[in-house]
Amino acid sequence: MISLKNKDIISILDVTKEEILYILDISKRMEEEGSSEILNGKVLANLFFEPSTRTRISFETAMKRLGGQVVGFDELGTTSTVKGESLRDSVKIIEGYCDIIVLRHFLEGASRLTADSVTIPVINAGDGASQHPTQTFVDLYTIKKVKGELENLSIGFLGDLKYGRTAHSLAYAMSNFGAEMYFISPPSLRIPKDYLEELESRNVTYHEVESLNEVSSKLDILYCTRIQKERFSDPVEYEKVRGIYKLSKPVMDELDVKEDLKILHPLPRVDEMDESLDDTSYAVYFQQAHSGIPVRETLLATVLGAIQ
Amino acid sequence: MISLKNKDIISILDVTKEEILYILDISKRMEEEGSSEILNGKVLANLFFEPSTRTRISFETAMKRLGGQVVGFDELGTTSTVKGESLRDSVKIIEGYCDIIVLRHFLEGASRLTADSVTIPVINAGDGASQHPTQTFVDLYTIKKVKGELENLSIGFLGDLKYGRTAHSLAYAMSNFGAEMYFISPPSLRIPKDYLEELESRNVTYHEVESLNEVSSKLDILYCTRIQKERFSDPVEYEKVRGIYKLSKPVMDELDVKEDLKILHPLPRVDEMDESLDDTSYAVYFQQAHSGIPVRETLLATVLGAIQ
Amino acid sequence: MISLKNKDIISILDVTKEEILYILDISKRMEEEGSSEILNGKVLANLFFEPSTRTRISFETAMKRLGGQVVGFDELGTTSTVKGESLRDSVKIIEGYCDIIVLRHFLEGASRLTADSVTIPVINAGDGASQHPTQTFVDLYTIKKVKGELENLSIGFLGDLKYGRTAHSLAYAMSNFGAEMYFISPPSLRIPKDYLEELESRNVTYHEVESLNEVSSKLDILYCTRIQKERFSDPVEYEKVRGIYKLSKPVMDELDVKEDLKILHPLPRVDEMDESLDDTSYAVYFQQAHSGIPVRETLLATVLGAIQ
Repeated sequence: MISLKNKDIISILDVTKEEILYILDISKRMEEEGSSEILNGKVLANLFFEPSTRTRISFETAMKRLGGQVVGFDELGTTSTVKGESLRDSVKIIEGYCDIIVLRHFLEGASRLTADSVTIPVINAGDGASQHPTQTFVDLYTIKKVKGELENLSIGFLGDLKYGRTAHSLAYAMSNFGAEMYFISPPSLRIPKDYLEELESRNVTYHEVESLNEVSSKLDILYCTRIQKERFSDPVEYEKVRGIYKLSKPVMDELDVKEDLKILHPLPRVDEMDESLDDTSYAVYFQQAHSGIPVRETLLATVLGAIQ
Repeated sequence: MISLKNKDIISILDVTKEEILYILDISKRMEEEGSSEILNGKVLANLFFEPSTRTRISFETAMKRLGGQVVGFDELGTTSTVKGESLRDSVKIIEGYCDIIVLRHFLEGASRLTADSVTIPVINAGDGASQHPTQTFVDLYTIKKVKGELENLSIGFLGDLKYGRTAHSLAYAMSNFGAEMYFISPPSLRIPKDYLEELESRNVTYHEVESLNEVSSKLDILYCTRIQKERFSDPVEYEKVRGIYKLSKPVMDELDVKEDLKILHPLPRVDEMDESLDDTSYAVYFQQAHSGIPVRETLLATVLGAIQ
Repeated sequence: MISLKNKDIISILDVTKEEILYILDISKRMEEEGSSEILNGKVLANLFFEPSTRTRISFETAMKRLGGQVVGFDELGTTSTVKGESLRDSVKIIEGYCDIIVLRHFLEGASRLTADSVTIPVINAGDGASQHPTQTFVDLYTIKKVKGELENLSIGFLGDLKYGRTAHSLAYAMSNFGAEMYFISPPSLRIPKDYLEELESRNVTYHEVESLNEVSSKLDILYCTRIQKERFSDPVEYEKVRGIYKLSKPVMDELDVKEDLKILHPLPRVDEMDESLDDTSYAVYFQQAHSGIPVRETLLATVLGAIQ
């Protein structure tokens, strides 16, 4: 019997395959059922030490759609941290106000520290460059929804695979489901060796390439990430890369792809996909964004013990 | 049978005379009935790309007084916009979280673009210098309440008629009701020609004057606006104008006005009306501000289909 | 029969001994009973003209835990104040939106002015350097809880007694209960003469000392405050003082104190208490912080007339 009651959600690596499937099943039910009152009387503290408007709003919406209440802050500016208070003190005080903490922080490890400091459950909404597990659940939910299953898919990761933490986490999670992986990036933005070694230890078959064309026909899923201009020391290199990976309807019309290929993106996008792509059958990124609500509803409700 | 269900509220020009009267009738009922639960389970996204504390709070209060929930942000600072995301993408994502969007934006036309991008209803809470239709409904509601009717009133507009969008919108709206209009301003802040031509095409009788004294005895309603010092290149000109238009109890005692004249102001005020005016029978601007709640309750509830 | 219905909570000096005990009794009930719906349909306007994240969140949590709604703002930045609006106008407008106002302001007297301008109840959440009465109720509640009674205690105040308004207010409040007081501070941060004269007029026995060691054995309660480095013109003086007053488990092990001494601190702390103190039997400051919820629930509910 799976139960997430009182569990902290800090890293996708802490979650078993069975727990992932359990969360996705309940998320489906949440999406079908819409608003309810199952978290009536519960209070979420949404502690955003670093701004992230969309993540904040999606947790807030999820909590409120289940009848819960939300308090919190959305930037460091007005908190006791600026008076020198430790994170441990801050969260030990807030713990007395609420039933669950969602934490966004600029420092890696802040979520784990918080979970170790308080007795109520903690959900990591992104800490430093490392983990953002709820985004990964959203990605997995979307893949399962559009493909019908998670097993034995070919998945391409495109763009910034060096800094893109959502790609890293999704690759780890998909290693549970026999995925074959294609890492498509310029040399300067290749996925770090550590991640590849971890995938090897999990017997994942993977390929590293520079050109989408080489592998496009193999893919069931293409997971795009935003390439951030500021990462490049050489603007010429950036412009070249940017040109190669700009997806659009005309580009897709030329590319050799499976008819049921689906393209995901954690958004926001800038140059890497243009609006002409939105009306193609490939585009599921808005659907993916909207799945943030049922998935986060599920995480809040299961961790609070409102759903067993 | 009038219904506003799923209608966007973008500009007062989109609304018919019948719809105005329908909204004002329901607003009266809302004011009498107070809090209720008719928007239980509904979520409003209050998207303030430009700060406007009072407008934001009045929409938030209206939604909550009807049992609804509110999410959103109150400034551009922490949004994906700063990462280069288009407004269209931002609102298409948020659309999946909520049932209705209230938008405040610094760019003219942002509300129309939003309404064209999403399938849920959108209410314009001010975009650029152009439209702020819910303020106009508040003004109309107040006039109807204090005068008993909207037909055939003499209405004076005082102050900054060049930049004052609330005056422009109210003039348009009152053209439905046979109003005679007096535009009272210094030469540098006269109402733009475009607006006058539109009023002419609607057969409105209007007068432009510089001095309130000339026309005060004709007025049923005096609609004051804030004169913004920074609009004037010559401080001497500003001081002169500011002096003429400063309303107070002593000024009103000297002025030839109808006994039942009522003075409105969208607030905030600075120099143009002093506190001595507040206790006179003319002052209805605090009542006007408070009417923001029932009027915005009405707009939210009718557009969401909770009231037919 | 005590009733706080429609009473403003501006200063601890306005509250009688009987009212204090009444509020503490109901707070105890609130803590035992947890969430309820007794403020359903009520709206709190949380007006924070000066940031204070924790105070804001604790009022917000308290209101929501009783079924009420909260609107407001958390900084001056986006308010009409920056357009030159008077505080009086701002609160007279907001009064029409809500049932109760909680005000935090950078100017001394702002709460009293607000209470005089509106007809709904006002709670002072800190204005200028003068008053922060709800913190004092939290302190009193904690003392009563940990000592069983408020009468005839020996209480030490440690640290910045010159600027520390929470210490001043608590001293006033404890003067109702026959407390003997020890003011422990460096010469540069002694409690101002005005306060001592007021305490004398109330027949309070008090002592001023520099060293905690001299008086530690007498104390039932030690109330610590944060020493703010920026108050010192001479850094050497600061370092000396900071060293003396740094409480920790090792320091307590050496100090001659009563076995049931309890240490309070309004938090945040910086250098004056280290984490080793947290697990000693003396430490009650996290419990004190958590008491902010039932105490503020009580103030909101009694002032709104939901509890008689």
